[in-house]
Amino acid sequence: MSTNFTNGEANTDHESLITPLLSSRRSLVNSTSQVAIVGAHVCPIESLDYEIAENDFFKQDWRSRGKMQIFQYVLMKWLLCFLIGLIVSLIGFFNNLAVENIAGMKFVVTSNMMLAKRYGMAFLVFSVSNLILTLGIFSLRTLVIKIIGSITAVSSSLLVGKAGPMVHTGACVAALLGQGGSKRFKLTWRWLRIFKNDRDRRDLVTCGSAAGMAAAFRAPVGGVLFALEEMASWWRSALLWRSFFTTAVVAIVLRALIDFCLSGKCGLFGKGGLIMFDVYSASVTYHLIDVLPVLTLGAIGGILGSLYNFLLDKVLRIYSRINEKGVVYKILLACAISIFTSCLLFGLPWLASCQRCPSDASEACPTIGRSGNFKKFQCPPGHYNDLASLIFNTNDDSVRNLFSKNTNFEFQYPSILIFFVTCFFLSIISFGIVAPAGLFIPVIVTGASYGRFVGMLVGSHSNLDHGLYAVLGAASFLAGSMRMTVSLCVIILELTNNLLLLPLIMLVLLVSKTVADAFNSNIYDLIMNAKGFPYLETHTEPYMRQLTVGDVVRGPLQVFQGIEKVGNIVHVLSTTNHNGFPVIDEPPLSESPVLYGLILRAHVIELLKKKAFMPTPVPIGTDALNLFSAGDFSKRGSGNGDKIEDLQFTEEEMEMFLDLHPFTNASPYTVVDSMSLAKALILFREVGLRHLMVTPKISGRSPVVGILTRHDFMPGHILGLHPMLTRSRWKRLRIRAPRIFKLF
Amino acid sequence: MSTNFTNGEANTDHESLITPLLSSRRSLVNSTSQVAIVGAHVCPIESLDYEIAENDFFKQDWRSRGKMQIFQYVLMKWLLCFLIGLIVSLIGFFNNLAVENIAGMKFVVTSNMMLAKRYGMAFLVFSVSNLILTLGIFSLRTLVIKIIGSITAVSSSLLVGKAGPMVHTGACVAALLGQGGSKRFKLTWRWLRIFKNDRDRRDLVTCGSAAGMAAAFRAPVGGVLFALEEMASWWRSALLWRSFFTTAVVAIVLRALIDFCLSGKCGLFGKGGLIMFDVYSASVTYHLIDVLPVLTLGAIGGILGSLYNFLLDKVLRIYSRINEKGVVYKILLACAISIFTSCLLFGLPWLASCQRCPSDASEACPTIGRSGNFKKFQCPPGHYNDLASLIFNTNDDSVRNLFSKNTNFEFQYPSILIFFVTCFFLSIISFGIVAPAGLFIPVIVTGASYGRFVGMLVGSHSNLDHGLYAVLGAASFLAGSMRMTVSLCVIILELTNNLLLLPLIMLVLLVSKTVADAFNSNIYDLIMNAKGFPYLETHTEPYMRQLTVGDVVRGPLQVFQGIEKVGNIVHVLSTTNHNGFPVIDEPPLSESPVLYGLILRAHVIELLKKKAFMPTPVPIGTDALNLFSAGDFSKRGSGNGDKIEDLQFTEEEMEMFLDLHPFTNASPYTVVDSMSLAKALILFREVGLRHLMVTPKISGRSPVVGILTRHDFMPGHILGLHPMLTRSRWKRLRIRAPRIFKLF
Repeated sequence: MSTNFTNGEANTDHESLITPLLSSRRSLVNSTSQVAIVGAHVCPIESLDYEIAENDFFKQDWRSRGKMQIFQYVLMKWLLCFLIGLIVSLIGFFNNLAVENIAGMKFVVTSNMMLAKRYGMAFLVFSVSNLILTLGIFSLRTLVIKIIGSITAVSSSLLVGKAGPMVHTGACVAALLGQGGSKRFKLTWRWLRIFKNDRDRRDLVTCGSAAGMAAAFRAPVGGVLFALEEMASWWRSALLWRSFFTTAVVAIVLRALIDFCLSGKCGLFGKGGLIMFDVYSASVTYHLIDVLPVLTLGAIGGILGSLYNFLLDKVLRIYSRINEKGVVYKILLACAISIFTSCLLFGLPWLASCQRCPSDASEACPTIGRSGNFKKFQCPPGHYNDLASLIFNTNDDSVRNLFSKNTNFEFQYPSILIFFVTCFFLSIISFGIVAPAGLFIPVIVTGASYGRFVGMLVGSHSNLDHGLYAVLGAASFLAGSMRMTVSLCVIILELTNNLLLLPLIMLVLLVSKTVADAFNSNIYDLIMNAKGFPYLETHTEPYMRQLTVGDVVRGPLQVFQGIEKVGNIVHVLSTTNHNGFPVIDEPPLSESPVLYGLILRAHVIELLKKKAFMPTPVPIGTDALNLFSAGDFSKRGSGNGDKIEDLQFTEEEMEMFLDLHPFTNASPYTVVDSMSLAKALILFREVGLRHLMVTPKISGRSPVVGILTRHDFMPGHILGLHPMLTRSRWKRLRIRAPRIFKLF
Repeated sequence: MSTNFTNGEANTDHESLITPLLSSRRSLVNSTSQVAIVGAHVCPIESLDYEIAENDFFKQDWRSRGKMQIFQYVLMKWLLCFLIGLIVSLIGFFNNLAVENIAGMKFVVTSNMMLAKRYGMAFLVFSVSNLILTLGIFSLRTLVIKIIGSITAVSSSLLVGKAGPMVHTGACVAALLGQGGSKRFKLTWRWLRIFKNDRDRRDLVTCGSAAGMAAAFRAPVGGVLFALEEMASWWRSALLWRSFFTTAVVAIVLRALIDFCLSGKCGLFGKGGLIMFDVYSASVTYHLIDVLPVLTLGAIGGILGSLYNFLLDKVLRIYSRINEKGVVYKILLACAISIFTSCLLFGLPWLASCQRCPSDASEACPTIGRSGNFKKFQCPPGHYNDLASLIFNTNDDSVRNLFSKNTNFEFQYPSILIFFVTCFFLSIISFGIVAPAGLFIPVIVTGASYGRFVGMLVGSHSNLDHGLYAVLGAASFLAGSMRMTVSLCVIILELTNNLLLLPLIMLVLLVSKTVADAFNSNIYDLIMNAKGFPYLETHTEPYMRQLTVGDVVRGPLQVFQGIEKVGNIVHVLSTTNHNGFPVIDEPPLSESPVLYGLILRAHVIELLKKKAFMPTPVPIGTDALNLFSAGDFSKRGSGNGDKIEDLQFTEEEMEMFLDLHPFTNASPYTVVDSMSLAKALILFREVGLRHLMVTPKISGRSPVVGILTRHDFMPGHILGLHPMLTRSRWKRLRIRAPRIFKLF
């Protein structure tokens, strides 16, 4: 099961796309249309094409390019990838640095107050700073909001991650560079305006999201695979190579920055290495006897993961109803969650009993300074609070504590259990509020505490360290919730640097994903479904083989003549919202009606704007083409595209003619109306189409029967037209299964 | 640049496919057709389809399947993947075990003789055992040859690798299981005969080759990515998940077997861990100053890699001319190479001066037993021969020695240089002989010695250990020769367990691939080109945008009527070698001539065989379908397919009729003849077609103009038809570049 969008919507940052911020932050959406598009029917923003509109104009432009121009074009693509990698890694590093310093400072101040037994004051500082940081989200707009918002949200002790916002940030940077800046912010770079087709920009966005993932987890290979497995619907080997290049830049820049930090100039960021949660251990030994607990851990992890998805889906639906009511409600919701989180986090450690510091501890006990395994909290000297050690840390440090080796007796059963339950529910209620939120880190924290708990239960029956159980637990929970395989595997490897554990990690991923798939879809699918984003599965449903294209195509169809009256064009554009129109040549121009091709709405509007009209219906001369430059037809930063309503025409102009031929894609993909729907879907999906023309099998009628778009392939639409069809037997099984969750 | 075959030929084991063994070992080829297919025009073996032939018969069969049958089908797929993983990992492990024991025993015996100063005797034993092992290749046939042949070839000190044969073995196992055994060897399993379409088998073959790679290098994730990047031309997310499952089985089984070996029961295999060349070092430190030498290393590695490709191509062309002359020549060539190798390997260490054993050596000096860094060879006590330490070891041990840490002063300049030059040329001349040979290990050995040499040159100007330079050198040479990115990166990580080196490895891969791409294609492309295998690039050439489909489609076209006379069918099948035919309904059956669909030659032959003829041209009843089972139409283990010449018909039968409708794929993909060639190629490539029907734009003529196959898209064919077209400007640059190599 893949969560890829089809054609139009690929390369989208799902994690960010699904934050309920989208509708409230139109400005961000607009400036980064390529990232946050949701199809023309849901939202007026048009997605980018994969298909190249091969019209005469395009061909002429291509022919006229000299060697130098092609060289410049190729060079530019690589340069942009380099820039994306550089910028994203800088942002990612800055993000990390800011979180560690802001959240760290908060914990240092609070801890000092706790040491001085000023508990009330500590709570006040803790909760107020959390509230202020949470509200930081509302202070800024556009791309910057993502960066600042993510920093303050993560710093505010909300259980949200930074991977999602970083992926989105990467995609935004790529989209901005790809379209040569943003008109809205008066930031445009002429030398960047070289990409005249959507495909190049789409590729850049994919590279950008790979770079974002790479920067968030310092996992360059994982980033490429994440983009491959979860992002792009249409993958080319050239793209693999290009995104590898981008993430390599990220890896190298990050490595250099970390090198810089080793000299101690990064404040509380400390001396972190390239590996975020290094649990390398030269002597990972495990035997056949360890397989059984690991299998159980994987299976229960899968169940927990699917339960997590189920609950998150429900909560998001409730939140979106609250958020719809207005900004005040949004702020109130965010504040409520922030205060609730503060109370919970500050209150819970009091439940844990104080532990005596171990005599052979490898680090200072109680912990001095910001991060460490032995937080003192309210405990007497020489003791530590194990629950506080998990809670009063940034998420990264909590994970590090849970993953740490040779700490088998450091945590108590109740503390780990309380922490697991807290994380599980807190991350669910934190995700939906109006903050740039990722899911990866919360899922890892929750999974790690779950795994550690299992490790403690298994105890001496296993050879594995509890820290390694925590790693496996995180893997099982990730697989249970996100359902990725190869990319998760590589990301976990790059996060933990433990290659010897690979066979067990693969086992856990397999079991957990298989179990979870029996209950519901992955988290991205569920949320996209809740948001109503039209999104095509990669695979075909069995009933599609029993239908033909003719069974689903709808009329009435709007067509243009090859040389069409301006008045007709304006009328059609004003009365429909289709994005593509068939162009047909009829008897005066050809012997019998012939399908010439497909023209895009945006291109027609461009023609109307330039008013290249003719008084009589004759073909336009090639000179007329010089009126246009290829740049005129490249898609704008969306939302800025012209609308038909904005154009004014005199009555005289309305009676004139427009020759659409040179601007019509004369090579559209077509299927016959007797084609099986399943095969048409494969074509649509694999080639990355937005419009698929349907021609009649028996000639003699109109040369085109209709146009298929993504919506015509949606199971909901098809089953609406043909209610007697059942969905796939497997699907039905799947749909019935989650009922056990309805008990909750 | 990807080296994927198109549609027909995907999932092929390139490394093995390109060994010159193919034609001489038809039996192997036949039993594993899916692996070693090269397109019907080069070789009479038909490739597997991706496209599902959606005919009435297929649909009826699909509809009639009950829940249990579907469940059984799905379960079976997973079970087979499990079996493939299990079998391949067992073979891989056995392979490894045998090589280590056979080659190890050889080295032990020879070393003992050397210790006793019986130098002549040692050489005799060494060279004769090598010769016998080399000749072992000729002793057996079929799948077994690959396994035994690979073991003896690698053991015989020939500089060949085991990855290629393992990939091929994996693919063979998968193909055998997928087709339910082999008729030829009377090994057929009825319960396996569940896969009725080619696509499932193709997927299994992909899983098998991923498993082979995983087993060869104990690199499960690398195996999946290798299959993704280098093998499959058509990738589905379901396939990613399935191949991940298969390699996970491999990883787990291998881990268990290694666990078993730790108890010392595996002879000379020793106590190897899961990581083949573990160079983990907690404190890999490098700074900006190290980047310059690493960049240089990458760039020179790229040049060396492309030079390697160039020379290997030339040598293979010479060898194939020798091998064509007959079996005697093949044996003579293999013997000559074996004896030459023996002399060289035995003679070269005498050139190296003896080194005094370091006082602080971490292991015994001189080496006792089989493997180690300090081989005594002819040296006096307390001394070692550094060149012998590299040469008198299995390839794996040589790599381990080169990668080993804290051994900066162990090797001398001349020894490393001699070893590098020897490996470079020896691996080139060893690859083409009639032995199952892989390229990975030879390239790694050569690259590692190159890297180590660079490390020694840079000396104290760098912070990096010479062992790490060897890793980087291997990476640069791999990238320069094979040109993969992500999969190479992961394979190197899994081989060496050094995640901290990742940024530098990525840098080296980038630089080396970029430099090498400026000179020539990757090794697989060059060899496939030399062999004349028709293979379609993923990308389109710019000139294809200037052509239409009509410009390349050829006639005359053979078509069948929907209800056709048996005599006509037999005549057409006998006089053409097309694999697919359009089926047309003409006026008695429809108003005007209409394209009904496409029927495959194999299916027509099956119909003729069953003699489901009718005396008059009327549609066949649905009862008649019961004559056939879906299994009749699934492709045989190729080469066993029936031929039209083998069928006999009476004159009466020749006058009868056959209703082709229920067996015709009624949903073939079509393009209009005015479609741009580039777009038709994208459709062909992305959907995975073998036949693409061309329909006329202007109706009224025949409903089909022709059929495009892979060959019609080959640049050679197109440029032959339209010589005035230039190839891509970039291609031209590339073609001109290798001229600098002509100097050699």
